[in-house]
Amino acid sequence: MEQKKPTMLSEIGEFGLIDRLTSNRKLVHTSSIKAVGDDAAVIDAGDHCMLVTTDLLVEGIHFNLVYTPLKHLGYKAVSVNVSDIYAMNAEPRQITVSIAVSGKFSLQALEELYSGIYMACDKYNVDLVGGDTSSSVTGLTLSITAIGVAKREEIVYRSGAQTNDLICVSGDLGAAYIGLQLLEREKAIFEKDPSLQPDLEGHDYIVGRQLKPEARGDIIKLLKEHKIQPTAMIDISDGLSSEILHICKNSDKGCRIYQEKIPIDHTTALMAEEFNIEPLICALHGGEDYELLFTVPLRDFDKVKELKEIHIIGKVMDKEENALMVSSGGNTIQLRAQGWDGLAER
Amino acid sequence: MEQKKPTMLSEIGEFGLIDRLTSNRKLVHTSSIKAVGDDAAVIDAGDHCMLVTTDLLVEGIHFNLVYTPLKHLGYKAVSVNVSDIYAMNAEPRQITVSIAVSGKFSLQALEELYSGIYMACDKYNVDLVGGDTSSSVTGLTLSITAIGVAKREEIVYRSGAQTNDLICVSGDLGAAYIGLQLLEREKAIFEKDPSLQPDLEGHDYIVGRQLKPEARGDIIKLLKEHKIQPTAMIDISDGLSSEILHICKNSDKGCRIYQEKIPIDHTTALMAEEFNIEPLICALHGGEDYELLFTVPLRDFDKVKELKEIHIIGKVMDKEENALMVSSGGNTIQLRAQGWDGLAER
Repeated sequence: MEQKKPTMLSEIGEFGLIDRLTSNRKLVHTSSIKAVGDDAAVIDAGDHCMLVTTDLLVEGIHFNLVYTPLKHLGYKAVSVNVSDIYAMNAEPRQITVSIAVSGKFSLQALEELYSGIYMACDKYNVDLVGGDTSSSVTGLTLSITAIGVAKREEIVYRSGAQTNDLICVSGDLGAAYIGLQLLEREKAIFEKDPSLQPDLEGHDYIVGRQLKPEARGDIIKLLKEHKIQPTAMIDISDGLSSEILHICKNSDKGCRIYQEKIPIDHTTALMAEEFNIEPLICALHGGEDYELLFTVPLRDFDKVKELKEIHIIGKVMDKEENALMVSSGGNTIQLRAQGWDGLAER
Repeated sequence: MEQKKPTMLSEIGEFGLIDRLTSNRKLVHTSSIKAVGDDAAVIDAGDHCMLVTTDLLVEGIHFNLVYTPLKHLGYKAVSVNVSDIYAMNAEPRQITVSIAVSGKFSLQALEELYSGIYMACDKYNVDLVGGDTSSSVTGLTLSITAIGVAKREEIVYRSGAQTNDLICVSGDLGAAYIGLQLLEREKAIFEKDPSLQPDLEGHDYIVGRQLKPEARGDIIKLLKEHKIQPTAMIDISDGLSSEILHICKNSDKGCRIYQEKIPIDHTTALMAEEFNIEPLICALHGGEDYELLFTVPLRDFDKVKELKEIHIIGKVMDKEENALMVSSGGNTIQLRAQGWDGLAER
């Protein structure tokens, strides 16, 4: 008799798993407007909608406490959740924070963590309204849920991109990834010879992008001020390439992006060269930038091009045109998702 | 120079920690009606309120996969969250499910877990609308957030108990705890000699109460049908004694409960005797019963006493009268919280 071999999670990846576990379920409540498959779930609340998103941060997977100050970790944990609310064009309002901690943590360590959480609450104007605390067998796990509000007609999904829309990205990309490489290198040096202190001087920007990312609520505000309503939006947590493909897939479209338009800070580029990594690779597949990737109608071109923090990097195409990047040399390259996979073997 | 010794979490306990980390914070949004300190947070949503609660389940702390079928675990994880929504006299609507899993889990194992989650979704009529998946360094962590709705005037807090109110509890208590003792005993026997198979026969009730608890939505429905609005309510996750003290503290009241009125199933009592544990101790401090503990005005006595699944176990007193239990012998005993502490050393 043949026994079926169990399928390992690393074989199917995070999105494959979510697909397998959550497809073919019907929603029973009319208030469940949008379930799995966007940056946040959307729940009808009468004259407006509530948005709900949740993220896990696991020690040894998402962060390493050797070089992550607890205060920064708390701040980042809130930022990454709030970022998902902004990515729906909504305003964050509340968060819940659950933590599982091993006995090695003291009250003072957790107060440090919470000082970062509260700093982010102040920054993003959200209330901490609940949570859970538990022991853990090893290390620290943080589970944060963010709740936001928006008018129903203002919510922006991944699925709304239209052919000829402009593809835009805020800020710059790849810095968080290359900052992580630097931190990992300095950690390795320190572990070999503890008398050598980490040399992070002059690298504040890329290290800060990794350890204390900001959610781009300012971009949402800017777009509103200029009366620009994106047609599709997502935040960049897994890398530009992966996120563009989400918009294309959900909108049933293709795209053309231009290598030379992808914003990369010069400090990112310099450090990438030091590591012998193409800066472009950091931007496409690095992830953790928490910038916003969105599409706007072509008619908004004049408005968008004036906005300093926003870069037009390409346009939406019909599906048949595929998802391609035009390189600086003029070649076209198929975009692939090679970014962060929460279930990849490490 | 004197260095301050770090405070270990086990010294201050779960409620002490929550208090230290969350007190002295002001809420900035008027929509944040109730934050930390009840079974769920309450958020104003216009013509109704949304309730949000979240619970962590950590392998090795909250469950042991040696005797916990993954399907049961999935079901229980939803039950315990939904139970917190019912405890606010609200209706559950949506859940999010986040999981961190180590590489030892296969797709098939997670499908088993989700079959239990979906079984509970069907039972409690909730939609799964989101979540997150991640690797973990060790074992399985589940983080579930449940969202419910209620009219503002229907929500029942822990703080509403009035002097002379009746104290009521649904179902029976202590079974989940003694079921756990039985499972632990059989596990220990099996580990010593794997040729001895676990003997759980005839103990379906207590084992089921531990592995697959039900949230008491039927009680909420029953109370509504009989137009009984509790003045205060909480679900019993940490043991009757601890929960009564929460109501007393939050309502600024005392209480008198009567030992002989505390509902204990005969199978619970028999197994407790086998373990040389007072059945009363299981009920007072065992926890994980997920029954509802609530107070109702004295005028509802005639209505409540007819309801089979509800037991009147005492009454609310002025604060100065303390929180006491009258034993079967007529002695009074001070109630103490000795139930589950998520941060106790194990």
